[in-house]
Amino acid sequence: MSIRLGIVGLGKIARDQHLGAIEATGGIELVAVASRNATLDGVASFNDIQDLLSSDTEIDAVSLCTPPQGRFEQARAAIEAGKHVMLEKPPGATLSEVHALEALAKEKGVTLFATWHSREAAAVEPTRALLAQRTIRSVAVEWKEDVRHWHPGQAWIWEPGGLGVFDPGINALSIVTRIMPVPFHLVRSDLFFPENRAAPIAASLVFEAVGGMAVTAEFDWRQTGPQTWDIRIDTEEGPVVVTHGGSRLTVDGEQRMVEEDREYRNLYKHFVQLVGEGRSDADFSPLVHVADAFLLGRRHAVEPFED
Amino acid sequence: MSIRLGIVGLGKIARDQHLGAIEATGGIELVAVASRNATLDGVASFNDIQDLLSSDTEIDAVSLCTPPQGRFEQARAAIEAGKHVMLEKPPGATLSEVHALEALAKEKGVTLFATWHSREAAAVEPTRALLAQRTIRSVAVEWKEDVRHWHPGQAWIWEPGGLGVFDPGINALSIVTRIMPVPFHLVRSDLFFPENRAAPIAASLVFEAVGGMAVTAEFDWRQTGPQTWDIRIDTEEGPVVVTHGGSRLTVDGEQRMVEEDREYRNLYKHFVQLVGEGRSDADFSPLVHVADAFLLGRRHAVEPFED
Repeated sequence: MSIRLGIVGLGKIARDQHLGAIEATGGIELVAVASRNATLDGVASFNDIQDLLSSDTEIDAVSLCTPPQGRFEQARAAIEAGKHVMLEKPPGATLSEVHALEALAKEKGVTLFATWHSREAAAVEPTRALLAQRTIRSVAVEWKEDVRHWHPGQAWIWEPGGLGVFDPGINALSIVTRIMPVPFHLVRSDLFFPENRAAPIAASLVFEAVGGMAVTAEFDWRQTGPQTWDIRIDTEEGPVVVTHGGSRLTVDGEQRMVEEDREYRNLYKHFVQLVGEGRSDADFSPLVHVADAFLLGRRHAVEPFED
Repeated sequence: MSIRLGIVGLGKIARDQHLGAIEATGGIELVAVASRNATLDGVASFNDIQDLLSSDTEIDAVSLCTPPQGRFEQARAAIEAGKHVMLEKPPGATLSEVHALEALAKEKGVTLFATWHSREAAAVEPTRALLAQRTIRSVAVEWKEDVRHWHPGQAWIWEPGGLGVFDPGINALSIVTRIMPVPFHLVRSDLFFPENRAAPIAASLVFEAVGGMAVTAEFDWRQTGPQTWDIRIDTEEGPVVVTHGGSRLTVDGEQRMVEEDREYRNLYKHFVQLVGEGRSDADFSPLVHVADAFLLGRRHAVEPFED
């Protein structure tokens, strides 16, 4: 039987990615939407998740596409009601709350899927397999995009808990934590805050892996023109380069892979599998690195940002 | 046989607390010290942990009393060499590094003890037992002290990773995470940074526990005169008040406990037990809350601080 799904939060990410991916995925169907501001033709629509959960519309799972601030109560209510839960990235506004959700999901016997869509990019798993066979010298991440293009007028992203430039940066970290064969931790963090905003517009990070290997990351939201989502891994055997957010892979100078984006379709396929197997998938390590970046961050003021 | 211990870092906390506590504890003896700036009469002295580990002085364990920044490499080297490790609080400068240490200690089969000395205060366990039987309405933490008195000239504490007012504040959080019967997570964080410092001098936190119960915490390093380390728990059955950093307990208006400070003696006693039983004790939840406080923190500038 198909999983009856409710989407909570019908904003930009839900419309750009989730609706089409659900439509294209077998084993799951959209039966309800909870959104303050929007409804969807042909689907039962509710004002919020409480209205949905107390309605006659039967659902098995919810997918939370709301901003991270305030998502805890929605997830908690769904899990308490025995629903499986899929969380957009980042999984929450704090680490303590996502740990609490994980414990609650385990207690209630439902699936919790903390998604990292960039991990579903085509080059990620091949790169992981390749790096397990190689000796890494260094890793350099460059994730630079134009916030005005990708987050037009999204005020929540500049508020505490909205992560600022770490909203895209956490995508890079979700890939790096997946492909690296050894753990790494932050040793220096420089954060660049517009004078009029509560979240950083750029970040410069230096990590160290066990063995002393350096991992660096440059995140910047002020890039106009071509956008950059690249991870360059220098290995003793030659360079491994993952570009275009994880969809293209070049190994030792030779292009290995150019794939179309199937990230969200892969996420829903994985969610259907997890529910079927009664498992959860909740790796919070990308958010741990982001929390570390704030904890260890040295703050620098830069010019005000206006949408 | 007694555990042969090396102390790394012979600064204020080692001299004020560790040396006397080790002396007073059975089953463990100090045989070495590693410190850049100081030696100890009658004990083998080394410049750093690398010199100690490669020397003829045999040790079974190390106690790290250095500042949290840079402690990872010391702990890693000790664990790799098969030594048990005891960490002063906070256990590290980042969460990722302490997670890595935990995994490494497990792999190497040595004891890792991430200490929280305030949890050893006399009133903590009785309060935990009491609260398990009561219905909590709210919790209010007030932790206010004079940084000039407690951390004279300690520059590292104002640097990124030094935590600022969370250095004492994490003591309060280590108690609250221990006595509370349910988990809680941050929903608002205001951080007050002196204009000339990279760490906060005060913080105002609002947490929510599952069920909606409020936990608030006020940390301030600008308090002269009487110092305040109080936790007030309002329960349906009456007030439970833990004061003096956890050494005094008042229940329903009646004083139950006034104890002398045995925190560090208890820590070393616990470490001897852990090593004897081949176990670790590494609960990082107080540091998770602090990382959350920076992640979710709204920054406010306050007047410069000069030592």
